[in-house]
Amino acid sequence: MDRHDIDMAAARFRADGRGFIRRTPLWQLPGAALGVDCAEVWLKLEHLQVSGSFKARGMYNRLLANPIPPAGVIVASGGNAGIATAAAARALGVPCEVFVPTVSSPAKQQKLRELGARVVVTGAVYAEALEACLGRQRETGALLTHAYDQPEVVAGAGTIALEIEEQGGRTPDAVLVSVGGGGLIAGIAAWFASRSRVIALEPELAPTLYRARAAGRPEDVAVGGIAADSLGAKRVGAIAWELAQRHVADALLLPDEAIRAAQLALWKEFKLAVEPAAALGLAALLARAYVPRAEETVTLVVCGANLDPATLS
Amino acid sequence: MDRHDIDMAAARFRADGRGFIRRTPLWQLPGAALGVDCAEVWLKLEHLQVSGSFKARGMYNRLLANPIPPAGVIVASGGNAGIATAAAARALGVPCEVFVPTVSSPAKQQKLRELGARVVVTGAVYAEALEACLGRQRETGALLTHAYDQPEVVAGAGTIALEIEEQGGRTPDAVLVSVGGGGLIAGIAAWFASRSRVIALEPELAPTLYRARAAGRPEDVAVGGIAADSLGAKRVGAIAWELAQRHVADALLLPDEAIRAAQLALWKEFKLAVEPAAALGLAALLARAYVPRAEETVTLVVCGANLDPATLS
Repeated sequence: MDRHDIDMAAARFRADGRGFIRRTPLWQLPGAALGVDCAEVWLKLEHLQVSGSFKARGMYNRLLANPIPPAGVIVASGGNAGIATAAAARALGVPCEVFVPTVSSPAKQQKLRELGARVVVTGAVYAEALEACLGRQRETGALLTHAYDQPEVVAGAGTIALEIEEQGGRTPDAVLVSVGGGGLIAGIAAWFASRSRVIALEPELAPTLYRARAAGRPEDVAVGGIAADSLGAKRVGAIAWELAQRHVADALLLPDEAIRAAQLALWKEFKLAVEPAAALGLAALLARAYVPRAEETVTLVVCGANLDPATLS
Repeated sequence: MDRHDIDMAAARFRADGRGFIRRTPLWQLPGAALGVDCAEVWLKLEHLQVSGSFKARGMYNRLLANPIPPAGVIVASGGNAGIATAAAARALGVPCEVFVPTVSSPAKQQKLRELGARVVVTGAVYAEALEACLGRQRETGALLTHAYDQPEVVAGAGTIALEIEEQGGRTPDAVLVSVGGGGLIAGIAAWFASRSRVIALEPELAPTLYRARAAGRPEDVAVGGIAADSLGAKRVGAIAWELAQRHVADALLLPDEAIRAAQLALWKEFKLAVEPAAALGLAALLARAYVPRAEETVTLVVCGANLDPATLS
């Protein structure tokens, strides 16, 4: 997985006549506009991506890059990866099965059904839903999408970094990226490859990459907290771990209170309605977990907006 | 009021070290992404402007262009113009008085107080609050801002059109603009001056420009409906009327149901949380009140986001 795979993904999106993947805006502001003492802050508004999160890029690239069997595609996810897979399958007119555990919310199941997916509710926890999904996949031969640990999925996410460089006309000094399973940061890090300082941000309560760095290898961690529904992977992916060792400069942890405060500030001061996982970048700046130099241009990847807007009232 | 005044306003914003006025993103999408049969739709995301609406541009330009007396600034408005004036005054560190009628919501009064304004609640309807405001202004000598009918206010709004042309690299074929008192469309029309087709959009229940065109002159109309809190001016402004006669190609009316449906679609499909007044452009396209040609580039000015997000749930 390197820049070439990202160029290929971008070429697939450009060649696709459906216009499914959106080129999301890069909002370039002086640091002062956010109360941050640095030259510029660039907000990549990827929460405006089709399906409401960056995940659509990876899933659509996975579907475009592989022959799709008659059984269609299959995924285990009650969150953004499931929604993105269902939306991508609908755009291509192929069947989609989504396995979710019984704990997943009826609202999310309904959303998946609206996107035309067959929803299978099974297992008390995610691991059991995944097991059932893999069993079904062996039976039907459907194309499996993984939320973060497949090369096409990582390359799709990497097209965000390609766009940031094109839209900004240069590489930013630093890029702050939220990490769950690591698919997003892996793509970003593969593109910039140390030409920008890529910084990983995680909730204190879901520290997969932070703990892998401490241990010298990925390991399972307990996850919870405000952003668990999108950053709640238990272990950083193998592709992400390999790329993070080479191209991620630092991994920082943020308390839930700072994440929630930044989420509310993004709505109140900037009218961006985003889910908690998308607020870690601003949280790092406002809580001074990441302190840029005065001349620095910092980019925040605002990665998802699948939330109930009433939670912002 | 012409292009020169808009250039002057843009120069003031650039020279202002506070970075108060934001250069908002222009989101350029293929028409297919919105289900519209035209080449491109450009969304000017002006609801991300400081104070949550485009009004900040006009108010800040008015304050920068005039000496501010010791009494500061004064405005009669329970809506976006009041919020924008209060925010601009705070940025410049000058006092601000806002007159609102007793019908204005406690939430909006609280918002004004949070911005440091002195709020005077008086009069049963807006006209009475305005009368009290004008009396107070004669007494204190404060600088009066008007929601739409002052040259600096119109010129400030016009900087949106200047940015659209800069960011898009050309003039769009058509620009769809919501109209209340007409300050926004006046600025847009003054900038493009018939180089783009500027189309006025109004709720059926608040048809100030539509009725002025029918009558051959501005006249008072009854206003109500879903967007009345931001498009509820009773009569189109004199500056807007003068410019609209020369440079507005058409005025279209939209039913409240189409406006509400577009507002919900902007949230559900595009994750843009906007107030009803900002949804008229998409409403016109989806309801086919405006039907672009296949090769056309249409721009929608998404103008405000001062809403309770719970109304999108």
